[in-house]
Amino acid sequence: MADPWQECMDYAVALARKAGDIIRGALKEEISIMTKSSPVDLVTETDQKVENFIISLIKEKYPSHSFIGEESVAAGEGSILTDNPTWIIDPIDGTTNFVHRFPFVAVSIGFVVNKKIEFGIVYSCIEDKMYTARKGKGAFCNGQKLQVSGQEDITKSLLVTELGSNRDPETIKIILSNMERLLSIPIHGIRAVGTAAVNMCLVATGGADAYYEMGIHCWDMAGAGIIITEAGGVLLDVSGGPFDLMSRRIIAASSRAIGERIAKALQIIPLKRDDATN
Amino acid sequence: MADPWQECMDYAVALARKAGDIIRGALKEEISIMTKSSPVDLVTETDQKVENFIISLIKEKYPSHSFIGEESVAAGEGSILTDNPTWIIDPIDGTTNFVHRFPFVAVSIGFVVNKKIEFGIVYSCIEDKMYTARKGKGAFCNGQKLQVSGQEDITKSLLVTELGSNRDPETIKIILSNMERLLSIPIHGIRAVGTAAVNMCLVATGGADAYYEMGIHCWDMAGAGIIITEAGGVLLDVSGGPFDLMSRRIIAASSRAIGERIAKALQIIPLKRDDATN
Repeated sequence: MADPWQECMDYAVALARKAGDIIRGALKEEISIMTKSSPVDLVTETDQKVENFIISLIKEKYPSHSFIGEESVAAGEGSILTDNPTWIIDPIDGTTNFVHRFPFVAVSIGFVVNKKIEFGIVYSCIEDKMYTARKGKGAFCNGQKLQVSGQEDITKSLLVTELGSNRDPETIKIILSNMERLLSIPIHGIRAVGTAAVNMCLVATGGADAYYEMGIHCWDMAGAGIIITEAGGVLLDVSGGPFDLMSRRIIAASSRAIGERIAKALQIIPLKRDDATN
Repeated sequence: MADPWQECMDYAVALARKAGDIIRGALKEEISIMTKSSPVDLVTETDQKVENFIISLIKEKYPSHSFIGEESVAAGEGSILTDNPTWIIDPIDGTTNFVHRFPFVAVSIGFVVNKKIEFGIVYSCIEDKMYTARKGKGAFCNGQKLQVSGQEDITKSLLVTELGSNRDPETIKIILSNMERLLSIPIHGIRAVGTAAVNMCLVATGGADAYYEMGIHCWDMAGAGIIITEAGGVLLDVSGGPFDLMSRRIIAASSRAIGERIAKALQIIPLKRDDATN
């Protein structure tokens, strides 16, 4: 039987590449910046333009499909995940990087059917790295097969995470205290390139052993999540339980052992789910 | 009058490129890891091999020059800076990245005469980015002229720093507390790619607005230091006073205003200088 979603995936790759062209073009112009949830939660006209570009072209081809896009949700649209084929889109993952021209900016597209991710695309457009994964068929970067490190020993691990854009003093304290607990184990180190999707793809390549974060959204995780699992990694909730795409929390690890050890260290930040109705 | 050091600089660029070839080659082989000052302060045979390669070829051509190299110092050689032309070398800046194949690893060469940096080379060899600066002649990456952002407003800034390899609980606390103070100003964010030299070069490109760190060494700063100043940036001590190459402390900023504001926020970590004689 032919793969029912391969055509969608091929289309998504082509759209991500074109979206990357738009983003690279915008980096050459002046960037006007607006803010969302906090003075450091940034958004630009390019985020909105790229999301409209991607969604309108998918809608044309697949009018019955559903969409959850970062900027559409910011503009008031819902983000309830149904069983319908659903495109989950972050037009610019790493908007702060984009604003500063810090060279890690990704287009993220995840495609979910019956609440399961079928494929994911992360196009790190300044580096020109196209990460892709189709369920059951492996993960790739520019055509090269990806494999996580498989590291199981936390004391030999390199982690990736972010400090985030929440400037609430209590939240900052928990984020830094979690880093302190992990560093003290000890671990080799922590890196942060400024985009959840690229951080996760770095775990998929084996370059880092795990990524964790609280406070991100389904559009930051849907594309890269399946890239992690198809590269042999595991997704967990920060509690160590099963991963939940709408929970705003993730551990993406090269092995269950590392993932569970991180979960043991983490203090939880209270968060409103992406599919909360009020 | 001809530039007396241009020939040395051209030679350094060629050596850095060849050193990068060795490093990229080593990434394809198994990497055997040893530790230095702590269980997470890593070193490999490639660090030593690349340093020997660079120093032996410079010694052949410039037998009267002096050398300070990370691995030579680790092996017991001194690191007193004299007025003699001195090559300051980090064969692999980002050894932990190298061990994990996290894709930011740099060869750093600084050339100092009368205690002033005359030129600097940072070759980020996985990305194939050759950063160079000659005093008074500007800074470049792969031939393209670099310019810092010039940002003066700390609340609009993106910073780079590292958590370092010191796992002393008091040191970790100060490092994280400094991040907390900066995040609370607020700033846009903090990134960490795992090498001081590449972090500084990212400031030189305008991609980040400042880098600060305590606990690094002259070989982490000599190459990139002049890349910062030739790109229009400033070097300061973490106290806000004048930068001192042997002090193990730095703020490399896109403007004096940002640098001084960071200095105001930082609590100081006590450190033994690179040129301490006991």
